[in-house]
Amino acid sequence: MENRLERIVDFCRLIDREKFITRRTYLTDGKRLENDAEHAWHLAMMVLLLHEYSNTKIDVLKTTGMVLIHDLVEIYAGDTFAYDPEGLKTQKEREARAADRLFSSLPEDMGSRFRGLWDEFEEWVTPEACFAHTLDNFQPLMLQAASDGRAWKEGKRKLSEVMHRNARTAEGSEVLWQYAEDNFIRPQVMKGHLEDDMKGEA
Amino acid sequence: MENRLERIVDFCRLIDREKFITRRTYLTDGKRLENDAEHAWHLAMMVLLLHEYSNTKIDVLKTTGMVLIHDLVEIYAGDTFAYDPEGLKTQKEREARAADRLFSSLPEDMGSRFRGLWDEFEEWVTPEACFAHTLDNFQPLMLQAASDGRAWKEGKRKLSEVMHRNARTAEGSEVLWQYAEDNFIRPQVMKGHLEDDMKGEA
Repeated sequence: MENRLERIVDFCRLIDREKFITRRTYLTDGKRLENDAEHAWHLAMMVLLLHEYSNTKIDVLKTTGMVLIHDLVEIYAGDTFAYDPEGLKTQKEREARAADRLFSSLPEDMGSRFRGLWDEFEEWVTPEACFAHTLDNFQPLMLQAASDGRAWKEGKRKLSEVMHRNARTAEGSEVLWQYAEDNFIRPQVMKGHLEDDMKGEA
Repeated sequence: MENRLERIVDFCRLIDREKFITRRTYLTDGKRLENDAEHAWHLAMMVLLLHEYSNTKIDVLKTTGMVLIHDLVEIYAGDTFAYDPEGLKTQKEREARAADRLFSSLPEDMGSRFRGLWDEFEEWVTPEACFAHTLDNFQPLMLQAASDGRAWKEGKRKLSEVMHRNARTAEGSEVLWQYAEDNFIRPQVMKGHLEDDMKGEA
């Protein structure tokens, strides 16, 4: 039992590193980039605040756990930029190896429970996984709009790239995807912060 | 309904500011101070990982929600340093005013649910609140030890101050408090990073 507690506390200490992993989205004040731990906290808050808009009723605790842990593998696999085609090719394999290493450091019962939750997120099939992915896309769109598209301008992003990345966002919540399109994406296109390469298509 | 969603999304955007509030604890690498959002994420992870060590069986979802929101009032009230006696005198009143302002911006049903959860944390009576407070104390002790007592050394902290601050930590988990004393506090005293002003007492 003492050894069990020690392994769990070691894991608690290890995951502090999630705070060192920088994402590509600016915070609402536009001053610095977000990190993985902040992002996961924000998603967990948004599960509590927005779950009523899920297409299908979801288990709130399960979904909260899912978003809290969804980026932990990046401690070993690093952050893969959503607009980096080379990184995306190897992402699945790198992250699966990272998950093996990470979750096996926990006591077995707990490690397999967490691994199962992460696998479920990755498989993107259950209502909980679909809603978690919706928020994982909705939240950075919200921050982009709040920072007036700073990262989009800097990356010279095109509307088609954003729409491609969000091809499945509505699967967890039609309402939230509609909201994001109307309030986060379209105004940035109107302002020219996101290049409209889909005229007439979107 | 559209107005309801808009109010909730406004709140989601507002709480991004939790990431701007700096605490007084260094991250495990000892390089920079933690912020409130990172701290709340870490506590939520630790509820999932450590709830089996609660003195009394707890509702995991409720406790997770509690730690996710427990510092939100600091968006309006600011962070009060645990070793600042002047700040501590006015903390309760400042934070209650902040909670009124913060949670009333949500739709009423949701605002009163979140307010109730925050009040329950503050009242420090239920098993969920006791365990949340235990983690709220255990996590910075873990980071202090990992950064080899950097903030304690800088603040010239005394053991009696740390013990006073942790007078109620065992109420949520005797096991975790014992672990923290043995593994986080005592070694820092032995190294002289925390002044032992309680010889023979502790």
